[in-house]
Amino acid sequence: MTFDTTRTAVARPVVAPGPRRGIGLDEMRLDGGFWGVHQETNARATLRHCVDWMERLGWLANFDRVARGSTGGERPGWQFSDSEVYKLLEAVAWQTAREPDPAAEELWDALVERIAAAQDDDGYLNTCFGHGGQRPRYSDLSEGHELYCTGHLLQAAVARVRTRGEDELVRIARRAADHVCREFGANGRQGICGHPEIELGLAELGRALDEPAYIEQARLFIERRGRGSLAPIALLSPAYFQDDIPVREADRWRGHAVRALYLAAGALDVATSMGDDELLHAVERQWTRSVERRTYLTGGMGSRHQDEGFGDDWELPPDRAYCETCAGVASIMVSWRLLLAKGEVKYADLIERTMYNVVATSPRADGRAFFYANPLHQREPGGDVRPDEVNPRAEGGIRAPWFDVSCCPTNVARTLASWQSYAAFVDDAGEEPVVTIAQYAAGEMHVATDRGTLVLDIATAYPDEGSVRIRVREAPADPVALRLRVPHWADGATLRGPDGDLPCAPGWADVAGPFATGDEIELTLPVAPRLTWPDPRVDAARGTVAVERGPLVLCLESVDLPDGVAIDGVALDVAESPRGSGDGAVVRLRVRQPKDGAEGRPPFLASPAHPDGLGREIDATVIPYHRWAERGASTMRVFLPVA
Amino acid sequence: MTFDTTRTAVARPVVAPGPRRGIGLDEMRLDGGFWGVHQETNARATLRHCVDWMERLGWLANFDRVARGSTGGERPGWQFSDSEVYKLLEAVAWQTAREPDPAAEELWDALVERIAAAQDDDGYLNTCFGHGGQRPRYSDLSEGHELYCTGHLLQAAVARVRTRGEDELVRIARRAADHVCREFGANGRQGICGHPEIELGLAELGRALDEPAYIEQARLFIERRGRGSLAPIALLSPAYFQDDIPVREADRWRGHAVRALYLAAGALDVATSMGDDELLHAVERQWTRSVERRTYLTGGMGSRHQDEGFGDDWELPPDRAYCETCAGVASIMVSWRLLLAKGEVKYADLIERTMYNVVATSPRADGRAFFYANPLHQREPGGDVRPDEVNPRAEGGIRAPWFDVSCCPTNVARTLASWQSYAAFVDDAGEEPVVTIAQYAAGEMHVATDRGTLVLDIATAYPDEGSVRIRVREAPADPVALRLRVPHWADGATLRGPDGDLPCAPGWADVAGPFATGDEIELTLPVAPRLTWPDPRVDAARGTVAVERGPLVLCLESVDLPDGVAIDGVALDVAESPRGSGDGAVVRLRVRQPKDGAEGRPPFLASPAHPDGLGREIDATVIPYHRWAERGASTMRVFLPVA
Repeated sequence: MTFDTTRTAVARPVVAPGPRRGIGLDEMRLDGGFWGVHQETNARATLRHCVDWMERLGWLANFDRVARGSTGGERPGWQFSDSEVYKLLEAVAWQTAREPDPAAEELWDALVERIAAAQDDDGYLNTCFGHGGQRPRYSDLSEGHELYCTGHLLQAAVARVRTRGEDELVRIARRAADHVCREFGANGRQGICGHPEIELGLAELGRALDEPAYIEQARLFIERRGRGSLAPIALLSPAYFQDDIPVREADRWRGHAVRALYLAAGALDVATSMGDDELLHAVERQWTRSVERRTYLTGGMGSRHQDEGFGDDWELPPDRAYCETCAGVASIMVSWRLLLAKGEVKYADLIERTMYNVVATSPRADGRAFFYANPLHQREPGGDVRPDEVNPRAEGGIRAPWFDVSCCPTNVARTLASWQSYAAFVDDAGEEPVVTIAQYAAGEMHVATDRGTLVLDIATAYPDEGSVRIRVREAPADPVALRLRVPHWADGATLRGPDGDLPCAPGWADVAGPFATGDEIELTLPVAPRLTWPDPRVDAARGTVAVERGPLVLCLESVDLPDGVAIDGVALDVAESPRGSGDGAVVRLRVRQPKDGAEGRPPFLASPAHPDGLGREIDATVIPYHRWAERGASTMRVFLPVA
Repeated sequence: MTFDTTRTAVARPVVAPGPRRGIGLDEMRLDGGFWGVHQETNARATLRHCVDWMERLGWLANFDRVARGSTGGERPGWQFSDSEVYKLLEAVAWQTAREPDPAAEELWDALVERIAAAQDDDGYLNTCFGHGGQRPRYSDLSEGHELYCTGHLLQAAVARVRTRGEDELVRIARRAADHVCREFGANGRQGICGHPEIELGLAELGRALDEPAYIEQARLFIERRGRGSLAPIALLSPAYFQDDIPVREADRWRGHAVRALYLAAGALDVATSMGDDELLHAVERQWTRSVERRTYLTGGMGSRHQDEGFGDDWELPPDRAYCETCAGVASIMVSWRLLLAKGEVKYADLIERTMYNVVATSPRADGRAFFYANPLHQREPGGDVRPDEVNPRAEGGIRAPWFDVSCCPTNVARTLASWQSYAAFVDDAGEEPVVTIAQYAAGEMHVATDRGTLVLDIATAYPDEGSVRIRVREAPADPVALRLRVPHWADGATLRGPDGDLPCAPGWADVAGPFATGDEIELTLPVAPRLTWPDPRVDAARGTVAVERGPLVLCLESVDLPDGVAIDGVALDVAESPRGSGDGAVVRLRVRQPKDGAEGRPPFLASPAHPDGLGREIDATVIPYHRWAERGASTMRVFLPVA
């Protein structure tokens, strides 16, 4: 723990009023393990990878052109490319807060210098609008993404001010926020941005800098939305950018998933800052309805490619699942805010599901290629990805180094760099402080409570193994309680305390203090493979079953099948329980030999075909979904037909 | 039969070399019935409806602006709006060929006059490019649609020259075709159009006017395709416009469905005109692979909204089925060409399936509103369609009067106006002429053979009833054989001839001549409702079954269920056979009461839920799919879960 203790405990993305506070980045150190390795790869490879691509494509040079006054009608990158630079900065801010890294510091300074030079005198900062040869400022609120970019700038500044204090980037962000408040305030332009993001950026920067005007501006943007003010985009409905129904009236998420979720996160920030329970309840209601009917087994959201959006209730096709990586990131942002606001375990459960099966799925093991979409069924090997080129965003089956629309790599980077901040939270409101561990990883926690610091050593090979051993290294003299999450799937979990093993049901498991140095608690979660069945209303998965193991969704990948057996030519023998193997499982399959029964006709038959279960038996390994496509182009499926 | 007998038998869209010729429009008169009513509505309502919308939106005035020299950078309509005018003209040409219609004649003359005035001196004709303030001609081959529009102009001219001879529109088309040949000939621009259509227009006009140069130009376009010459469109792959693989090398259709199918039709025209068997076989292969794996029960093609395109093999989601109406029209164009070239019954089977379940589904009963997309499962009532406005193209659930991209209404219009030309064909190559009836409808046929005219009276209430009675009114003295299609689903069909009832298997049923006046043949097709099961590889329909009746796909619509029972809350009791009722059927359903088993979690459960079959029994009517959504906003499904 190397940095300014005055900011200990604020080194985190969300600092909301209320009894619960998430731990700061500096309150937990990862010791290898699943997330430690991911975080290390992110620090060593991904950050640089993103900078290099943005330099190569001219997205960074866009700032220089504005600074030099040499803009024109055309510029490299989409209108939202500035935001990638800001998301990368946010990642760098979190990363450098955790450990000294002179190279990253140098990178920070160099980038901030170029950004500073591009800011207009009145605080406006955007490389696509408002300068020579470009369209005027705010002339295209529907698609221009100017406020969206500003929102990401503010989030980067939040990361910086909460880990290092006010530096040049924070001053840039302050000027930009002031400009937005002047321009779009109560008496200003009554507009909103086609892509929500400014709301949460303003609200959090307002909290970080103690500027209520920023939070008020966020509130104005939230209230203005849903009233049809945005000019339509061809072929898309106003629901695409949530301009169809006011936020506090909507009962579900709809339209573009990332937009819907950033908006929900911003609404929660406004609601908690303003004590607006109606708005808070509206988002809770949207969460429940959308999670229960519009969310994939992986936690992924977004069933449609066309608008990168939510589908109707129960519309969850595995093959055309969009499940954009960024929607996973955004879903975690929303659930984390709700977890702090409400303390309910279901939010932490969904964060875990999404972290392991969406966020961890996107980056290749080397941190230099990414999935943008995360389908649950790949029918054709993803041969179209070009390893050294910019790729279309939704190619399935092979991770790509960079995308034409490249929002996902930097979103993964900032999430991995700040993983610790989702691991635990402290509730100081009751008689004794309660430290809740929401996510498990090996490492040490130094959690500040108002009775003193609780220091815990956590040893675990989770999720490969189910044992989580927590040893108290240091505890305040006053009582502090510990609360552990027992995930919803962990029927049969046990807690070994001073008094022996106790069964604990899914939910929060309370361990009463006071604690003394040397106390040990062991939580054992059952991580044997298990079968998971789709709700019968999920038409696209009827007659299938998935295999899960702990928080991991498993999948069958073609490279794990014998030659001549196709991913779509097997069915799962559910009479034979899957057996754990490494981090995956071994399952019994029946190989089917479907005949082409519809010669010269569409594939619909005069009698039911039951080739399943007729073929030979084979055993095959199913691997964690997050690891698929690491062994070359392949086909894959999560949901296996039942033999 | 009111018109010039020198053109009898050429009044048809496709006149290909080879032994088989389709009958001309003037060789069959419909006598009410399914298609007679549709054709009448088309003539009385749809043609005028289309003209009115194109006038209202300024798509017709675009021609006037070019004529006046008052174009600018902006103009109403998409870049392909000219093509709608040409498709409407084609419909008017076919329609006025069948019956005198002074109002339609006047419309024809008025439209042609406006079009003529917009043609440049060198034959170029397009209202979006090449004039004052517009982008230069052929500056955007990927998206500009200039040659696509020209192709539709040529098809309209083909309809006219084959029904009335060379008039002003034909001369316009000739000049446009000459221009294209000069511009894009062997020594000209080596380009192709992003949207195929010019190929079949050129080939057919070349045949109609005996201009081999046009056919050669079509061949050049076909050969140039698939070599990556088109500039990419953001986020879409070259497969979107079939520029990924040369036509003669491809083994399946892929990308944008209408593009793929127009291209296939053009390739067949070139293949048959040039005797290019390799090219013909390539398209046959593509047809087989794509029909057997990428085609819906309705005959609809196109599984994806995003690119209006084919999906992977077996990717046939009922809810997100795109099944664009125009792809149905285009599929019929391809199958008809293959039927003439190869004589195989499967092509006629698919034409029938697509005519009843895609083409007839699109127009509302009054002919003034249309489906663009034809999904097989509507989860939410289609409340978003605006009855008096231009609608986005893919709204489901309510037919819309007009679309932003409005290709479907005029495509339906030209297909219905020429329905007769798909009903029968004559093979004069053998020892005796064979007249094949491919589609059944009440009416009279006067079919010219080289031994004389065969006149048949056809009495049938098909498809509601299975009996087709054919009475010979007049026959040549020389032997003429009759061949009748027994559809693939018609197990148990019988043929009553002079010698009594004979069973006849699906395929072609031959009835030997010679015939004499008064001879009667009765074909009886079994049209009792039947169950149809998805191939087990169609993941999205696993565990479901459909009900069909003759050529009609049936569906369950919410308005036919009791209050409180939802379309997605029932399962079909397959032990109880569906019973015929009117033009639909009555089925036994079990009402299920699914519990929300996944509180606060994605809808995937720890144990298999089998609520099906547990609820009460109800009987419900399933109606022909083509009639759904005629009774207000509703939900609907074709595939019903099996109880």
